[in-house]
Amino acid sequence: MKSSKNNSISPLAPEILSELPAIAGVRLGVGCSGTKYKDRNDVMIAVCDASTAVAGVFTTSKTASASVDWCRAQVSDGKGRAVVVNAGNANAFTGQQGIVGVETVVGKVADVLECPSTEIFASSTGVIGEPLDADAIVKVIKDTIANATPDNWLEAARAIMTTDTFPKLATATAFIGDLPVLINGFAKGSGMIAPDMATMLGYIFTDAPIPGDILQALLYKSVEHSFNSISVDSDTSTSDTVLMFATGQAHGTGLSDIQSEEDPRLDQFKEQLDALTLDLAHQIVRDGEGATKFVTICVNGAESDRAAKVIAKSIADSPLVKTAIAGEDPNWGRIVMAVGKSGQAADRDSLIIWIGDTQVTEKGYVHPDYDEQVTQGHMKGDEIMIKVDVGIAKGSATVWTCDLTHAYIDINADYRS
Amino acid sequence: MKSSKNNSISPLAPEILSELPAIAGVRLGVGCSGTKYKDRNDVMIAVCDASTAVAGVFTTSKTASASVDWCRAQVSDGKGRAVVVNAGNANAFTGQQGIVGVETVVGKVADVLECPSTEIFASSTGVIGEPLDADAIVKVIKDTIANATPDNWLEAARAIMTTDTFPKLATATAFIGDLPVLINGFAKGSGMIAPDMATMLGYIFTDAPIPGDILQALLYKSVEHSFNSISVDSDTSTSDTVLMFATGQAHGTGLSDIQSEEDPRLDQFKEQLDALTLDLAHQIVRDGEGATKFVTICVNGAESDRAAKVIAKSIADSPLVKTAIAGEDPNWGRIVMAVGKSGQAADRDSLIIWIGDTQVTEKGYVHPDYDEQVTQGHMKGDEIMIKVDVGIAKGSATVWTCDLTHAYIDINADYRS
Repeated sequence: MKSSKNNSISPLAPEILSELPAIAGVRLGVGCSGTKYKDRNDVMIAVCDASTAVAGVFTTSKTASASVDWCRAQVSDGKGRAVVVNAGNANAFTGQQGIVGVETVVGKVADVLECPSTEIFASSTGVIGEPLDADAIVKVIKDTIANATPDNWLEAARAIMTTDTFPKLATATAFIGDLPVLINGFAKGSGMIAPDMATMLGYIFTDAPIPGDILQALLYKSVEHSFNSISVDSDTSTSDTVLMFATGQAHGTGLSDIQSEEDPRLDQFKEQLDALTLDLAHQIVRDGEGATKFVTICVNGAESDRAAKVIAKSIADSPLVKTAIAGEDPNWGRIVMAVGKSGQAADRDSLIIWIGDTQVTEKGYVHPDYDEQVTQGHMKGDEIMIKVDVGIAKGSATVWTCDLTHAYIDINADYRS
Repeated sequence: MKSSKNNSISPLAPEILSELPAIAGVRLGVGCSGTKYKDRNDVMIAVCDASTAVAGVFTTSKTASASVDWCRAQVSDGKGRAVVVNAGNANAFTGQQGIVGVETVVGKVADVLECPSTEIFASSTGVIGEPLDADAIVKVIKDTIANATPDNWLEAARAIMTTDTFPKLATATAFIGDLPVLINGFAKGSGMIAPDMATMLGYIFTDAPIPGDILQALLYKSVEHSFNSISVDSDTSTSDTVLMFATGQAHGTGLSDIQSEEDPRLDQFKEQLDALTLDLAHQIVRDGEGATKFVTICVNGAESDRAAKVIAKSIADSPLVKTAIAGEDPNWGRIVMAVGKSGQAADRDSLIIWIGDTQVTEKGYVHPDYDEQVTQGHMKGDEIMIKVDVGIAKGSATVWTCDLTHAYIDINADYRS
């Protein structure tokens, strides 16, 4: 088994961090509140110009954090001036004090920006159940905003990290009609990763002129096949949040109003947004706590796309599959087990499994030409591909995950995160 | 974190193994087929006298083993002469050859016992997807039956072990009316443990005169609150099987026929059967792969008993909760998270959590008198109690699990089981 030590960068980290260009109408500031981390920035504020549209997707957890409750209440207005994020404390399960904490923090940001507090969004990430020291955050807000600059993406991505070993950034360009637009995004997440209709923390910014309701529709669809299709440990966070801001300040000639998410001028933008959210989601898997393998699981032949996703997640979340991958063992019997336990329709005697490019099974049994040496070679790599056809209908889904190693246990048994 | 080394006996094992008395009409034989384990018995045959009633509960896996398919097809007749079990190979996902394998094995047992093969049950446990060497098993069947004795319970329980570190046995007595009866049971299971309407392997024998259909009803109810309420790793086996045989040979005076599962004369028998299945289920958790803590999770206040069980399992199966327990950290925020991700109704602001006897939360926040030193003391013990009231209605459930340690990863990454 490969090792992935605490505090060192994940062996699956991208070799180069993306460099993000400025986006007209967005500035990023970072500050150090000292609430948990003493020697690094732990507050991030992204400030957008007035009349920026906003969209958001949030955790389905029944014990969502006070910050998530706040954002959910405000997002339907579609107006977003800023988002303030603190790392180290999730402000989840903190009762009335937690609600007051969010209101205090967003109130201060609104004061400095001279706007309604309902246009200020907030996220908190870290330990659940400890009181948020809102005053410590409030103290650094004014300076953090004053020092915000358009090129501060890397420091912004670093300031929201908790057990992450590298900052997660991505950028894309697209044309909407003749108008060139930019999309930037950054995210955090490493453990407690199994979003369901939502995700860990992700912030996406564009200068495209897209109204809030259309932005919401585009974001929702994009999240389903990216952040909502990854799993590190099958645990769903109380704080999962993706927010997207559109400043509308891209310069160009005569783009008439976008009035529908079906407007064909949005096709390339959708494509690029999907690629960007997928890139960030993959970076989260690559920084999965203790991960040494990046695993792609494709399921075809299911009763529906939804059924395919349930089966893919059943494989992705199985501790026995994940430990076999950590041990570089092509133990495909555990994949059969995980398909079987998913509860979704599957035809045992039509089930086909591939590991890498090698077909392992046929007609409910091992393939006559199957050579385990070949799949063993594939398992030794960093990128593992598992494909399954369950032989029922045409539903398909892809899910990404990582292996389960000793380092996951070290990180979560020995530290309170 | 405490350690639980491979190949040594679980630190949670019972100090004394139960000694099981003979049950009239039951003999147990063991043999060594040499198919996987070379230096131990790996075949067990329990032979019952003619006119023994049988009941069974099986895995809900969509990729059930050939042996499970066979048992399911025969059990409705309610007649059971014998069960033959092999350890080391699950005969799951072995296609047509697997079906022929079961038929060959049960056919041989039926020949020796001179009875229809439909009265012979079979289980296989071990690696999934490898062909079963039925001939090797067939070779030892005659001698195994010839050497079967009424007092061979311990060797029978040992012969069906795979990654188990100790044999699991239990015995009970009850009166049905004035008739004293015996119940014996043994089981195996250590990993791939998250039964759903079924379980790992368990075999229960009684001399009580109970017809097959009533036996089935009693067994089904008993399994729901025992084998179906435990989880080691959230993975559901392809081979889960509980079979119960009633020889009807208990001697006594004038017990008229039992014609209904509601017969009040069965009350004590039900109670003792439930205690026995729970005892065996707890032994499986105590032998959970890598386990160092035995964890009881009680959920109250849920929308229904079913909802309570889903919440309890969400806590029991959370890798973050399990690693916190391994690390002896009373990280109750992760319990909040697991309640939230369960998808069941819960009122965050009424949620109450206890660790041991200590109330941790109140009104959606940490309890004002909460002293973490007290819960830390509880977490250092071997027996962890987590109680949750979700504040919605009156549904309740209890689920048992163990912690997630390095040894689980060693066992499953480094060995193919």
